[in-house]
Parts: sequence; structure tokens; C-alpha cells
Amino acid sequence: MNQQMEIICIGNELLIGKTLNTNAHWLAKHVTTFGIIVKRITVVSDDVGEIASTMREALKRKPRFIITIGGLGPTFDDKTLEGMAKALNRKLEVNEKALKMVREKYEAYFEEGKMEKVELTPARVKMATLPERAEPLPNPVGTAPGVIIKIEGTFLIALPGVPPEMEAIFKESVAPLLKKEAGGLTFFETSIYADGIMESALAPLIDKAMHDNPYIYIKSHPKGEERKPHIEIHFSTTAKNSNIARDRLGKAMVQLSELAQENGGKIRFKGKK
Amino acid sequence: MNQQMEIICIGNELLIGKTLNTNAHWLAKHVTTFGIIVKRITVVSDDVGEIASTMREALKRKPRFIITIGGLGPTFDDKTLEGMAKALNRKLEVNEKALKMVREKYEAYFEEGKMEKVELTPARVKMATLPERAEPLPNPVGTAPGVIIKIEGTFLIALPGVPPEMEAIFKESVAPLLKKEAGGLTFFETSIYADGIMESALAPLIDKAMHDNPYIYIKSHPKGEERKPHIEIHFSTTAKNSNIARDRLGKAMVQLSELAQENGGKIRFKGKK
Repeated sequence: MNQQMEIICIGNELLIGKTLNTNAHWLAKHVTTFGIIVKRITVVSDDVGEIASTMREALKRKPRFIITIGGLGPTFDDKTLEGMAKALNRKLEVNEKALKMVREKYEAYFEEGKMEKVELTPARVKMATLPERAEPLPNPVGTAPGVIIKIEGTFLIALPGVPPEMEAIFKESVAPLLKKEAGGLTFFETSIYADGIMESALAPLIDKAMHDNPYIYIKSHPKGEERKPHIEIHFSTTAKNSNIARDRLGKAMVQLSELAQENGGKIRFKGKK
Repeated sequence: MNQQMEIICIGNELLIGKTLNTNAHWLAKHVTTFGIIVKRITVVSDDVGEIASTMREALKRKPRFIITIGGLGPTFDDKTLEGMAKALNRKLEVNEKALKMVREKYEAYFEEGKMEKVELTPARVKMATLPERAEPLPNPVGTAPGVIIKIEGTFLIALPGVPPEMEAIFKESVAPLLKKEAGGLTFFETSIYADGIMESALAPLIDKAMHDNPYIYIKSHPKGEERKPHIEIHFSTTAKNSNIARDRLGKAMVQLSELAQENGGKIRFKGKK
């Protein structure tokens, strides 16, 4: 089963180093726990051509899911839907279902006394102007709906960049789809910490443990410096249930701990600050 | 002058949401201040094929600089140099200059009493095994050297993923090159904050200010929610000196502040928490 995903983040603020990309981190972490494999994260600018070509390249690699984050709001530089239409060679049209969602939001703001009158200005209608045959996803906490289109074997999903809105649409509309499609696999991970052994001395030991434990991925992350090594050793696996995962992870951890200790390393189960 | 850059981050830990990509953020922020335009950030896994195809795609877009981060260490899953050799159709070979750098590091560790003997194991020689005709960049704080290769009009630069090592090689060897190549342009930015005006009402005002100030980029970042709007308005420009930049930014800020106030917005020069 194809459980691959690509994430595309859209926004100049990410490319000028103004904003730290916590959205990609949050999304990658969540979908990974469902057994989805994130193959690539791409960050591009608020430019229709860049957005369209990035989407086309991702579609060619045929992942099961592409999730875009950002560029769905009312301002001129929110260009994700225009880029999507260009990538798919589809027209943009006012989507009646999306327009209803947007109108109801402004009616609610009006009733709360936050607006003097409900007015669907061009900037507001823009948020309901989707590529043909797209479906809007309700936004429980903001105005701009999310968007989903199925293109052959790929679900192309657009989420807004404001973190609480991205997270709310994901939880309400996207997570249930991913769980269904991922086929019940789950991601498990754990770490141990080695002191007193250099990463370059640990390297062949990790090689051996990976070879002997084919379903386990092991990666070392140096936390100190090479001359005073403190290394996190991260073990992960994707499995049908936690018993299988725990057995696999345990076996690999025990083997690598023994190998590291034979080579002068001290193993801890908690990292140092 | 072509001042474009692409950043390629390599590491499964970024794709499973284990590690927040602070390296890309740090690097993007620093190079932007030199007047460099980051066009794309791509995150891929520790896979030779993925690394090579990502590099090849980036090279085809002919940016002036490609900087990769991660995958230069001694373990089996540090595959950046192998991916680079594959992308460029070059052989990997032990680079004598790089090997000297690595050897001197281990000799220093030995002299400090951190190692029993200096031994250049295969895992350690790997850090000095570069694509043909590559140049190593000294690592002031760790073991793995950075790498630079000039490919036609593009500088392809590889930095390690451990943040202090990435930053130290960047400052010592990469920043001077970028400053020289960027031709003396610098990036300037500032923000104001608007309360009491919805982002959708601000949108056409930003449109007008962008139109009247062609060298200024303005982007709104909603910090509250649509019904209780608190919006950061970020102004940026790239200019030859700070006088030009200050004049441009000031003119655009005054115009947009007036427009926002005419439409019921309150302008502050500091954001709310």
C-alpha cells in the first residue's frame, strides 16, 4: 500500500527566515504516528508559477497524499488556489459550498457585533474561489476553508498557514482520511543515550544492529561534541501493533547497548541537558 | 546578478517530525541579510537516490548557490557525499586535504586524552571521502569538514547538520563568499501591528500600498483570530544601503497606516503577546 506523503509549505516568511516552520514539524509528526511516510517537505514562495511547478513535480512522484500549508487567506499574496488551478490545468470558480461556509462565518461575526454589515468583498469571495471539482473542508476556527481534490491516485489537500486553523482542519477532516488510508499501521520510536563513545566508534555498531534488525531504523544524533560525546540513539519502526513494535525495538536496543558497552560506552535511558 | 539560493536539508529526523528544522531557519535568515534570495527549501531522507535527484533538480534551476545541511558524519546513514557524487556523475575519492583535517582532529582528541590511540577507521575516513575535484571546508568545532564544488555557475556547498558545526563552517568559510557574490545588497525589514481591522478588509489596502511602492514587499500575518483581529504587517526590501531602505520602508508604512486608520484600524509599532 502506498502510504507516502509530500508536504509543500508556501510562504515568503519561511524563505527569509522570519518564521520557523513549526507547521511542517507538527504535521510530519502527526501523520508519521498514523504510519504515513513523509518523503519530502518543500518550501516555496508566494508565487503562482513556483507553487504550480512544485505541485506538478510532487504529483509526478505519485505519493498517496500531498498536503500544502499556507496561502489560502484573503490577501493578494495568498496564491495557493491559483497555483493549484494552474498545476492541474483547471479553471478557478466560486465554489457554492465554500462560499456558504465563508458567508456563514461573516454572518456569525456580524451577529457578535464585530462587523457593521455582512459584505462579501472580492477579498472574501477569493477564499471560496477554488479549482473546478475541488471540495472545501470546513474551518472550525477561522474563515478560509481547506480544500481537497483527488487526482488519480493522489489526494491533494490544501490547509491554511495560521497554525490553529491548520491543526483544526487537519484534526476534523484530514486525520480520519489518513487513518483509513494508512491501513492500521503505526509508528513507534524510542531513544537511548550513550556517553563516553565517539559517534565515529558507534557507527559500525549501529551498522551491525541495523543489519540484524531489518525492520528497525537506528540513527545517532550527537548532542555533545566529538571530544566529549553524548549521543542520542533513536530507534524507530512502523508496525501493525504495539506488541510487535515493542519486541522489535527491545531486541535492537539490547543488542546495541551491549555492543556500545563492550566498546567503552555508558548507556542511559534519559538524555542529559 | 543571480543571487538565488536553494537549501536542501537531509535527514529522516526532519521528515518524521522528531527534529524541528531550526537549521534551515537559521541559514535562511542569515543569507537573506546578505541580499541573497532563498527560492526553495527542500527536506529529503537519508537516501542516496533521493539526495542525488533533489540536487540534480536544484542544479537544473541554476541558482547561484545550493547549500545542503546534514549527512556528513561518520555513520552509515550520512549519505550526502555519496548523493552528491551520484548527482554529479563523479567518483568518490579520499581527499588528502580533508583527510589531513580529520586526522588532525583525532590527534588533538588523543593529546587531550580522550582517545587511547589515533585510528583512522573506515567510518572516520568516510568523512574525508569526497566527490572528485571537491574542496573541503575546515570545521572549527567538530570533525566532519564541509565541502564546496563549483558546477558551472553554481556553488554547491555541503554543511554538517549538528547546529554549532553548521554555523561555525558557515561563518568561517561560506559567509565571506556569499557577501562577495551578493554584490553589496542588503535586506531590510520592519513590522507594524493593526488591531480592529479584519485581514480581509486590510487585503485591498495592502494591494494599493504594494502597487504604489514597487520595491517594497508587504505581507500580513494574522496573530489573533478573524473575529478579534491582531495583524502583523511586515514590510521588507532589498537595497544598496540603509538610507534608501529606510526611505522606502517609511513611505510604505506611513501610507498603509493611514489607509488602515481610515478603515477603522488602530496601528501600533509593537506586537501584543
